[in-house]
Amino acid sequence: MATPPITELFVAAADVAAKTAEAAGLPKIAINKVSCEWLQILAEGWASPMTGFMREKEFLKCIHFNQIDGVNQSVPIVLPINAEDKASIAGAAKITLTYEGKDMAIMNAPEVYDHVKEERAARTFGLVDAGHPYVEKIMNAGDFLVGGELEVLNKFAWNDGLDKYRKTPLELQAEFQKRGCDAVFAFQLRNPVHNGHALLMTDTHRKLKEQGFKKPTLLLHPLGGYTKADDVPLDVRMQQYDCVLNEKVLHPDETVLAIFPGPMIYAGPTEVQWHCKARMNAGATHYIVGRDPAGMAHPVEDRDMFLAHHGREVLAMAPGLEKIEIVPFKFAAYDSKKVSDRPGKPLGAMNFYDPSRADEFVKISGSKMRKFAREGVTPPDGYMCPTGWQVVADFYKAKAAAAAAAEAGEPAAKKARV
Amino acid sequence: MATPPITELFVAAADVAAKTAEAAGLPKIAINKVSCEWLQILAEGWASPMTGFMREKEFLKCIHFNQIDGVNQSVPIVLPINAEDKASIAGAAKITLTYEGKDMAIMNAPEVYDHVKEERAARTFGLVDAGHPYVEKIMNAGDFLVGGELEVLNKFAWNDGLDKYRKTPLELQAEFQKRGCDAVFAFQLRNPVHNGHALLMTDTHRKLKEQGFKKPTLLLHPLGGYTKADDVPLDVRMQQYDCVLNEKVLHPDETVLAIFPGPMIYAGPTEVQWHCKARMNAGATHYIVGRDPAGMAHPVEDRDMFLAHHGREVLAMAPGLEKIEIVPFKFAAYDSKKVSDRPGKPLGAMNFYDPSRADEFVKISGSKMRKFAREGVTPPDGYMCPTGWQVVADFYKAKAAAAAAAEAGEPAAKKARV
Repeated sequence: MATPPITELFVAAADVAAKTAEAAGLPKIAINKVSCEWLQILAEGWASPMTGFMREKEFLKCIHFNQIDGVNQSVPIVLPINAEDKASIAGAAKITLTYEGKDMAIMNAPEVYDHVKEERAARTFGLVDAGHPYVEKIMNAGDFLVGGELEVLNKFAWNDGLDKYRKTPLELQAEFQKRGCDAVFAFQLRNPVHNGHALLMTDTHRKLKEQGFKKPTLLLHPLGGYTKADDVPLDVRMQQYDCVLNEKVLHPDETVLAIFPGPMIYAGPTEVQWHCKARMNAGATHYIVGRDPAGMAHPVEDRDMFLAHHGREVLAMAPGLEKIEIVPFKFAAYDSKKVSDRPGKPLGAMNFYDPSRADEFVKISGSKMRKFAREGVTPPDGYMCPTGWQVVADFYKAKAAAAAAAEAGEPAAKKARV
Repeated sequence: MATPPITELFVAAADVAAKTAEAAGLPKIAINKVSCEWLQILAEGWASPMTGFMREKEFLKCIHFNQIDGVNQSVPIVLPINAEDKASIAGAAKITLTYEGKDMAIMNAPEVYDHVKEERAARTFGLVDAGHPYVEKIMNAGDFLVGGELEVLNKFAWNDGLDKYRKTPLELQAEFQKRGCDAVFAFQLRNPVHNGHALLMTDTHRKLKEQGFKKPTLLLHPLGGYTKADDVPLDVRMQQYDCVLNEKVLHPDETVLAIFPGPMIYAGPTEVQWHCKARMNAGATHYIVGRDPAGMAHPVEDRDMFLAHHGREVLAMAPGLEKIEIVPFKFAAYDSKKVSDRPGKPLGAMNFYDPSRADEFVKISGSKMRKFAREGVTPPDGYMCPTGWQVVADFYKAKAAAAAAAEAGEPAAKKARV
């Protein structure tokens, strides 16, 4: 089993008191939620061997070559600051990063450099339109970046009832070892699991068994940081995943469900490399990649941002990911002619697409699913496990009601939640 | 001496007649001048080991990683075609590329794929503004790219009186060998040579001698393909370089003057890698890189497109260029206090910038030089060799006169020339 060496950036337990006291006296920079998510990513070693927010040389290697000295690093992990912040830390040998008033980490020998926003966006996303949700964040961020090695004072807790799912790379490696896994196939997702996903994952499990692995295990690894406003929120997704496991659409003995704490940036072929590399650090030996990974609709034009096949092609050729096996995603859709091949199991009628009988397949898109849910229509039998569907349907119904209430000017009590 | 193996794409002499006959009968695609310049680049082996216009996998490796299987390739060398072209070659196992009605090359097993223009521009240039001259070309080009291995029928001749300077990589390697060069330092340029450039090159020569090289040689390698409208045209630059050599500002025994046949794309840190790699293929062992190589003013904002230090930093860290030594350019300016250190030689008063006496340096920018020239003002003594200055001054005077004539509605006889 793969247990890559991980550099965590947490202060040793014995030093926490001293470092906490030191941090209190340093010049401080307040960071926002997304930067705090990146801080967690760095602290826990998802980006290992990185030891802090990027310095300029690392940033240049990242945006031009998607690697730092042979290690894949496609997405910049940088900390924007404004001119006022820059002035406040001028000459400081160390600074403290704070989040919501709490000292989080010490940054050593901070290096301040220009935040070339347009160029960063262009090279990372392949466009610069601020209508893109993460590009908009970049354009609105500070004009400088500050990089340097980190000493992180405490473990992260978001206190949202989901922290038990937030396992670090080392914790995941230990879990896989405890279970005796000899292959771990990771599935990154930011959506509810329908039976097409499940079919793919059970099929991958079967194939790995056929290849001779004794205990192949799925790392079902939803992204838990920032997502754009129209994605399904994390708590709803986690409820839905629980249903999928309870109904044994995915078997709990063959599945580890955990939350990946990073933000989503919607950078397609550039981001999928990062998603894969982070899971490799957690011990994944195989990575499942689908159509248009980390993609979204173009913010201006009537098309997707990326060509659907680019993500998996770029992932397959990316430097520094040679040790993880890329498993291309077969497209699954609702097969109107399929009789369930697992009687009593709800994999139902989702099937791998067969172009020779294209007419018999029905693609249930995200927007069709949302329409079903809002209107109380039950999707075709076998599309999603029933309890999981209920979670999704309830969410969209509540969201539609809240939107209607907001439009009518009524107080939308549940709005914050949906 | 470095003599990297070069793959030329020319048809062997014995096969030219047969291949020419074959080409005549194939479906044809007419290519424009810039594509023909890229064809020459490929044919002569500047991009070796590339064997043709990029297929999609090569294109993706290039735009995401700036390398193809460990070989540096930062700039896409692609052939755009439109929908009509695409339809006309559908199913063809071979096609012929033509330029100005002449069959130039056979492309084997052509692969047509989507020209993702915005993404190509963003990842290559760090912006997508069509106000950038080469990005504008991309945006106006066909919606598809066609890639495949090439068999090029004939050597290239542009019949402009300058073909004798267009030496291929193999010809340059042979020239260096004939001269007994043990170090070749390449200088890419698209501007007249002033004494600041010359100082840098003579200084590099001196340092290489000190390092123990017996016969260090300058490859003075102006770019000869497409340049934007306000750059000095090639024929004028070549006249000016002749003056620089005749006046022995650069010593002819220590200098090889040749034309690099590719187009300029103004892609800064991305393009400088390509400029360096192409010269490595020609046998260069050292590459001189200055401030903001291959940069230009931002097409929209009031700043340069790239930060001045990014080009040389990115070049120094670029994968696949480990075998060529990067020589960073020291900034030279007009030193009002300098007494010529080469009495009788016109290196004059340009000197390496000394920040401790900044007041004594005068930066003569391109726009200041153009103003001097237009207005018939002689620049400070020692800025440029006198006969070279005359060439530059005559060019700008003629250009200003032609512009004035055009404005007055008069027939501008010399306009095409300037």
